[in-house]
Amino acid sequence: MLVAGRAMRTIWLEDDGASVGIIDQTVLPHTLVTLKLTKLDEAAHAIRSMQVRGAPLIGAAAAYGMALAMRENASDAGLEAASKTLLATRPTAVNLRWAIEDMRRLLQPLAPTARSAAAYKRAAEICDEDVAINRGIAAAGLPLIETAWAKKGKQGRVEILTHCNAGWLATVDWGTALAPIYMAHERKIPLHVWVDETRPRNQGASLTAWELGQHGVSHTVIADNAGGHLMQHGQVDLCIVGTDRTTASGDVANKIGTYLKALAAHDNNVPFYVALPSPTIDWTLDDGVKQIPIEERDASEVTHIAGRADNGATVRVQLTPANSPAANYAFDVTPARLVTGLITERGVAKASREGLLDLFPEMKENARANNPRVLSF
Amino acid sequence: MLVAGRAMRTIWLEDDGASVGIIDQTVLPHTLVTLKLTKLDEAAHAIRSMQVRGAPLIGAAAAYGMALAMRENASDAGLEAASKTLLATRPTAVNLRWAIEDMRRLLQPLAPTARSAAAYKRAAEICDEDVAINRGIAAAGLPLIETAWAKKGKQGRVEILTHCNAGWLATVDWGTALAPIYMAHERKIPLHVWVDETRPRNQGASLTAWELGQHGVSHTVIADNAGGHLMQHGQVDLCIVGTDRTTASGDVANKIGTYLKALAAHDNNVPFYVALPSPTIDWTLDDGVKQIPIEERDASEVTHIAGRADNGATVRVQLTPANSPAANYAFDVTPARLVTGLITERGVAKASREGLLDLFPEMKENARANNPRVLSF
Repeated sequence: MLVAGRAMRTIWLEDDGASVGIIDQTVLPHTLVTLKLTKLDEAAHAIRSMQVRGAPLIGAAAAYGMALAMRENASDAGLEAASKTLLATRPTAVNLRWAIEDMRRLLQPLAPTARSAAAYKRAAEICDEDVAINRGIAAAGLPLIETAWAKKGKQGRVEILTHCNAGWLATVDWGTALAPIYMAHERKIPLHVWVDETRPRNQGASLTAWELGQHGVSHTVIADNAGGHLMQHGQVDLCIVGTDRTTASGDVANKIGTYLKALAAHDNNVPFYVALPSPTIDWTLDDGVKQIPIEERDASEVTHIAGRADNGATVRVQLTPANSPAANYAFDVTPARLVTGLITERGVAKASREGLLDLFPEMKENARANNPRVLSF
Repeated sequence: MLVAGRAMRTIWLEDDGASVGIIDQTVLPHTLVTLKLTKLDEAAHAIRSMQVRGAPLIGAAAAYGMALAMRENASDAGLEAASKTLLATRPTAVNLRWAIEDMRRLLQPLAPTARSAAAYKRAAEICDEDVAINRGIAAAGLPLIETAWAKKGKQGRVEILTHCNAGWLATVDWGTALAPIYMAHERKIPLHVWVDETRPRNQGASLTAWELGQHGVSHTVIADNAGGHLMQHGQVDLCIVGTDRTTASGDVANKIGTYLKALAAHDNNVPFYVALPSPTIDWTLDDGVKQIPIEERDASEVTHIAGRADNGATVRVQLTPANSPAANYAFDVTPARLVTGLITERGVAKASREGLLDLFPEMKENARANNPRVLSF
């Protein structure tokens, strides 16, 4: 997608053919800083410190981290150590584990001298595969926006609400929930995005608003509290959000607060779509509310917030009384009954086992043997 | 209610019998500062700058502002000028207008020499009337908490979720939504309050958390996004919120985001109560979503936030990209169908015209001639 008019991905091989470029997402939205990673340790640091975040991007960064490691030490011991180092950066990120194991399976049988070249090749493929999947999501979701536009008699603009950041910053390019929006924007469908700020980590206010703004997509940041009011007053034509984990029955675990927006959409007959790469479907799960454990994160994310002070410095301030405890649930589960459809790279499925199996008939056979990747935006 | 173990109201007559004490709510929750108002202009400044806020408290402060003015200049011109000055502080606050007109009706017929004493007397009455109404709400709501406690077999603690600040800081004492909670706490019912932070102005994280903490009520601050997840997992026994405006049909306009919590409560069979002083019922309105205009406030309340930096200073920081617009809807409307009951000083009414008229039969006659006060927390 575009940044100040220039096409960018979130991760790329530099012109030297060895070092890896990334956007330092920790200083967005106030400053655009790109970093050049040249060593395994720098890649590990980038993942650990969330300079790169979003499951697909974490996977891509880990793959390139393995490639950087193979340039430093391509021995069996080096391969082992690199896997361990990268895996420890964010131990619960399933995509991270997936990418590291994919690379190990590829590299272990090879002679050490062949490993570096093979690793760079596979890392680039992983990036391109992510882009292809997301472009598939864009194409599958585009007709939903076209339909909304037609339904309005092509008057005004299509009003879309999103929550958190499931945009290109969380992937290699395009994003998931935002992918159909970018494609509709390319097709010149007039649209406007209501961006939930997404407390407590404010991924909407900082990342989604930034990437939409850079790409030239009209948008407005709102408090997470505002979406219900907008839907009551006909100001939202459809919602599109991402998901971290999807059950075979169509329940979706996504950033905390998604469930509340789905309830409001349902109460006001606003279509509520969830976009996802199909590898994140967990075919072994049937009941998201009961079966998906919800991570509790540090309370300081609720009690404190960082922003840009008048003097340009980033300052962290406390919002709560010194002695008031806080709780910080990271995700919630939206039951399938509230989901209008699941936008996958193969098309839009009904949020049900039948709906998903129609699109992924091969899973009828091996539905209980899968190894889903999990997105963590 | 208690502050550091000492009983306080939000507004009081000082020992000199002339000046008026208030808590400067703009520096809460990080610092407790009390101010002594001695002149009309100081009272007007306190209201304008939101050192006092919450409709009942604004009304009380305006009444005392009139009393301070009568000490300075009790002539007809002085009375007129004081009314104008105070009315201009927050022109849309209906309670402000009500209190000023109440005082004018009382003072105008009196000889100037009699006005000051009469004004102080009436201001004290207005404060005591507010406390009496809120104590009535406390008594009416207490059985709901007792019932929840009995339903749990008196095990654990009653879990109550609230939104925004409808506590004693918004009134003279007790509060509205928090009044039953304070009374249940006095009766030693173990309870715990989930405090929505209430973006964008964070009245929950700053004011509700502070006043509950000072009074010794167990509580936890959560992002506004978290309540649905808690209700899905049985961690909320009932919700109690306030309201700024209530229709005769039982719809309630309250701080933005209330509607989303009511939807989640409904979806999870959690009772959802709204507490209100009956003078805030607007008997002329039937359809809150259609008839109640929703104030849009300055976008900077969404794009920026103030908090306490590590060095103790209050710092305002920007959260959004420099070029991203924001929208700031202050209230939303929760339809009566989502409200389990309305807690008034006369008892708990069903959220319907019939339910309200059962409690307020005198309104059958003059339902279209009322002049409701409106709360603005």
